[in-house]
Formats: sequence, structure tokens, C-alpha cells
Amino acid sequence: SDESFIAYAAAAPNLALIKYWGKRDSRLVLPLNNSISVTLDDQLMRTVTMATASPEFAEDFVELNGKPVEVTDRMRAVLQSLRQRCQRGQDLASWKVRVATRNSFPTAAGLASSSSGLCAFAVAVARLADTLRWLSTVARLGSGSACRSLFAGFAEWSAGQRPDGVDSTASQLASAGHWDLRVLVCVVGAGAKSAPSTQAMARTVATSSLLPARLSCLPDRLAAVREAVAGRDFASLAEMSMRDSNCLHAVCADTYPPVHYLTDASRAIIDFVHRLNEASGRVVLGYTADAGPNVCLLAQPADVHLAAGCLQRAFDIGQVVGDLGEAADNSKVPSDWAGDGSGGEGRLRATGSNRC
Amino acid sequence: SDESFIAYAAAAPNLALIKYWGKRDSRLVLPLNNSISVTLDDQLMRTVTMATASPEFAEDFVELNGKPVEVTDRMRAVLQSLRQRCQRGQDLASWKVRVATRNSFPTAAGLASSSSGLCAFAVAVARLADTLRWLSTVARLGSGSACRSLFAGFAEWSAGQRPDGVDSTASQLASAGHWDLRVLVCVVGAGAKSAPSTQAMARTVATSSLLPARLSCLPDRLAAVREAVAGRDFASLAEMSMRDSNCLHAVCADTYPPVHYLTDASRAIIDFVHRLNEASGRVVLGYTADAGPNVCLLAQPADVHLAAGCLQRAFDIGQVVGDLGEAADNSKVPSDWAGDGSGGEGRLRATGSNRC
Repeated sequence: SDESFIAYAAAAPNLALIKYWGKRDSRLVLPLNNSISVTLDDQLMRTVTMATASPEFAEDFVELNGKPVEVTDRMRAVLQSLRQRCQRGQDLASWKVRVATRNSFPTAAGLASSSSGLCAFAVAVARLADTLRWLSTVARLGSGSACRSLFAGFAEWSAGQRPDGVDSTASQLASAGHWDLRVLVCVVGAGAKSAPSTQAMARTVATSSLLPARLSCLPDRLAAVREAVAGRDFASLAEMSMRDSNCLHAVCADTYPPVHYLTDASRAIIDFVHRLNEASGRVVLGYTADAGPNVCLLAQPADVHLAAGCLQRAFDIGQVVGDLGEAADNSKVPSDWAGDGSGGEGRLRATGSNRC
Repeated sequence: SDESFIAYAAAAPNLALIKYWGKRDSRLVLPLNNSISVTLDDQLMRTVTMATASPEFAEDFVELNGKPVEVTDRMRAVLQSLRQRCQRGQDLASWKVRVATRNSFPTAAGLASSSSGLCAFAVAVARLADTLRWLSTVARLGSGSACRSLFAGFAEWSAGQRPDGVDSTASQLASAGHWDLRVLVCVVGAGAKSAPSTQAMARTVATSSLLPARLSCLPDRLAAVREAVAGRDFASLAEMSMRDSNCLHAVCADTYPPVHYLTDASRAIIDFVHRLNEASGRVVLGYTADAGPNVCLLAQPADVHLAAGCLQRAFDIGQVVGDLGEAADNSKVPSDWAGDGSGGEGRLRATGSNRC
């Protein structure tokens, strides 16, 4: 009807090379440290979201892949933030919203779907409200890592210093076209993670004796990653991402009670990468693992088939490079949505996904 | 013949509650930090060693459980150190030595057999040389943790400050009779450890960004353990040992390439302990894991059966409290060896061992 607004958005998940772990303000989702990520190719992995506002809706409603999901406090924070800034007048600001979202990749696999999901959510609702200012802040309220998915290529999310968080925003370090990298996603476990990351990081902040040391060493590590991105230095980028991933899981292990995300299978892949690099005499692969058992491998395009072949032999699996599973049903999405909300081209290619 | 000397010694393995990880001097085996351990009951787990010196031996020779083993550089350092101090005259100091050693517990299970093994080795050879001075230093040259097995009950090995290491010695904090504690040994894997601890700790010292933070927080943790031992405060002792075990495995994870000792099975036991304690509303169990997958659980005597029953249900295993496997063949050991080398009574009881 005339009495409704509709908006679309899409976003791809991002892979943190320097991890976000620990908040300085939980309500505003302000992190303790800067983080740097690379956004995956949205042709292979993306979230597409449609948001509708109408005076006829009785309450806010969110569905994922066709099924209703809980409207979380974080989603409410995004909606409230945008209602306050709505540029279409008080009428629309008071209307309830329906959000339908679809992932082109397995949601259950814990592949950073919250970063693309909450990014697309924030952008779609912001378009409803006709206000794209402060988008970094709004996306962050939905999920910290979502603000990095606003950009294709390499992005850095600044921790900022102000108590109100207005300086805690993401920005692009380099476009996706700057450097052609590949990611091999090793799906180790599709089950739910052992500890929700919000609770787990709060426990790390409260109990880990090693977290301050992690924060102290991050400025140097962040600088090394910026330099590696600028100079397309794969060996350095891969080493920094491996060290930071190890460091993240170390502070999780030092948390009390400890937080365990990696499994024996994850660690077997990690050990495999070090053996392959040592045997090759150069850095063929890097790895990074988020708050779950899956391990993402970084490779240069020329090495993908070498790496995939070695992985196949090491873990006796059938197929390494392949499709990412069922595609999203994008039939209802207008053709002009593609790439919106991130503004880049030639995104990082997510190459393959398989159970190891 | 008249032309030979023979000496016996026995020692029990010790369990580090505050771990030794990282050396300040590799040759002299000087640690970066103090460590505190509890020596297990030598009635259940012990190493018995017989050392013989004779002018007829062509070379030094060591056997373990009846089979020849390599005479390591560490063993040579012990022998050399004692030859220099030999009180029986130059003749004996130049004789070669045969050492036969037996463990009353599974050697392959990685149950700190080096602490009891090298302690008994050092004591037996020192008796040959008729010099029991500097025994802490001599045992340390064989294996750092061996110096703590010189004592029953609770022992602290001081890191010391002097470059020559003469102040890096172990001393007893409390006799075994001071506090009746039980240890449940969960044998997770009997295989060889993934990384020899000497190499792994050198890599941690060289690469971990978090190790300095661990060392900084240890003085407070050591003080808390001393206080818990003095006051028989089980909740505090257990918590400190859990935190320090977690912290050790965290700096191993932060090592580059990472060092992985715990397995999914180890972590399942650790998570079980936290769940049991939370459900009980008090600290029923503590845990600690060394450089391997096995997990040792600490309990007060009254809780052993409760804990064992819960373990049994949680892991569906047949028997938790039981014997520790085949006993050593002590038939050739004179009856007066028992307890020598540690000088305590009523040692910590090692209660049971089973595959979890």
C-alpha cells in the first residue's frame, strides 16, 4: 500500500585478522582494541535483507531464512537508534518494522554470519529511515563486527577513546581490488559454539590475567598488518593473523572458567599449516579462527590448488575447493541491491568450504 | 666384588600446582619463575633406582624398567657434577656407572615420571659419591622438576637470582602429614606428548607475547598458594591451581607455532570440573594438567567418592578409583630404601587412574 516503506541491503561476512575481543562499554558495544578485517566476496557469501515499515504492523518482527527469530536487545538498539534519527517524519518513526533476512551460506556453521547479518540489518533499516549518517555506529550497536562489513576489502574498526563512542567507527584500509587473496573455509563443526561470544568476552575481561598483555602488544601488531596490507606482503599478513588468532584463543584459555572454542580438529588444521609452511620453506598458508571451531585459511591465488591438495591428502577428504552450499533465494530482491552497503568491487574470494 | 659400590634411592612424582615453564639458563636448568608442587604418595607411585660403580664398566649405562635407554646430556650433567664432588676418592670418581631404574606406575602415560625418575637418579648417584650436599642443584640438572621430588608434601622451587644458580633450590613448604589431599589421575592419552617440553618452553620464551604477563602475575599467585597450604584452604588451592594450569596452556597456545598439549578429552574433564563445582555451590574439585593431555584432579578425602561417581556418570567409564597398574619389581631393592630421598611420611595419596 501507499502506507508502507520498503528497503533492501546486502553485506558480506568479514574475517578478523586482528581480533575484536573485549568491550570497554557493553551497552554501546565499544571495544577495548582496534581490529582489522577483510570482507569476503559477496558473490559467494552474503546476507540480503529486506526491511518494511507499515502502520499496520503490531510489533517489530524479524525472520531469518524464512523462519521467525527472536528480536534481540541488540536489534532493538539498532531500531531505536534509527527511529530517533528518522528523516521521513514522526509517522514512520513510530511504525513497527518487519525485517526478512537470508544468508547465501550456512548460518549454522558459525561463519561470522552476525557480521554480515547485523550489517545488512542496520543498512536496510537506515534506508527505511532515510538516514545513512552514523551508519558505523548503528551497525556496531547490532554486533560489533558488523561495522567492518560496511566496507569491501580491508577495514579497520577503531576502538576510539570517547565515552560516548562517536570515535569508535570502521573505515576502509584498502579496497578489495587492491589485493587478490583467497580464503579456504574449513568447516570443522556446524554445532552451536560452546560459549556465546558476548558472555565469553565479558568473562575474559573480568578474569584473564593475560588480557592486558594482549592489549599492550596489539598496537605493534596492528601496525604490522596495516603495513602488510599496504605492501601486499602475504608472509607478514599471514604470520600476524596466525599470531593474533593464537593470542585470542590463549586469552580464552586463560579465562576463568576457561573458554574453549577450538577442537582437536581445529588444532590439527593449525598444526598442518605450520608443517606445510615449514616444508615449503615459505608461508603458503595463514590461518585464523574466530569464536568457534572453524578455521579459515588465507592463501595467495597461485597457491590455492597446492594448499587444497595438501589439505585433501592430510585429512582424507573428498573435495576442498567447491561451492558454499545452497544459495539464498534472491528472487524477491531487486537487481539494484547488489553490493550496496559496502561499495567495493572485486571482493575477496571465498574459495570453498568443506568438512575437514 | 670388593671393587664396586652400590646405592639405592626412591622418589615419587610431584604435581606442580604453580607450573615451571621457561628457563633463564638452559645449561644450568634455571627457571624463570618459582614453582610449587605436591609430591604424590610414594606407596602408589614411585621410581626406585639402583646405581652401581665399578672399574670394570666400559661406559655409563642406564636402563628403565629393564630396557636400556639413551644416556641423555642431562644425565651426563648429573654424573659429571657428582664425579667432581665425589667424597670417596679419585678412583671411584673415574669409574663408569650403571643405573637401573623402575617405575611403579605407567611410564608411557606422561605422569611426571621425569620428576621422580631424575630425582631418584640424582640421589642414587649422590649416595655412590657419598655426597648429599647440593642435592637440589644436582637433581635440577637432571630435570628441573626433579628437585621438587626431593621432598614429600608441598615443595617450592625458587627461581633464584644468581647467574650460577646456587640460590635456585627446592625446599619443603609443608610435610605431607600437614594436609590430607587426594589426586585423581585421569589418563587421557598414553601416547608421547606432541612437543618435548624442553623445546616447547624454549619456543614459548622466544615467541610468546603473553609470557611476560604470566611471570608478572605469578608472585601474587605463589603467595596465595603458600597461604592456602598453610591454612589448608582447599577452595583457594584448587582455584589457584586451575588458574595456573589454564595460564600455562594459554602461553603454550600463544607460542608461535602454537604448542598444543590438551585434547578435546582433557578439556571435557576441565569443563566437567567447573560444572560440578558450580552445581555443588562449592569447590569440590580442582584440576591441573602438565605438558601433556592427562588431567589430575585435586579433592578433599571426603569428596573423592562423590567426585569419582560424577566422573563415572559424565564420561561413562567403568571404574574411576582403583589401582595404578602393574607394580614395580622391587624384589632386588633392600627393605631400607623406602622413603629415602624425600624424608616424609603420610604422603599425598594418588587415588586411582583410569582412561576417561
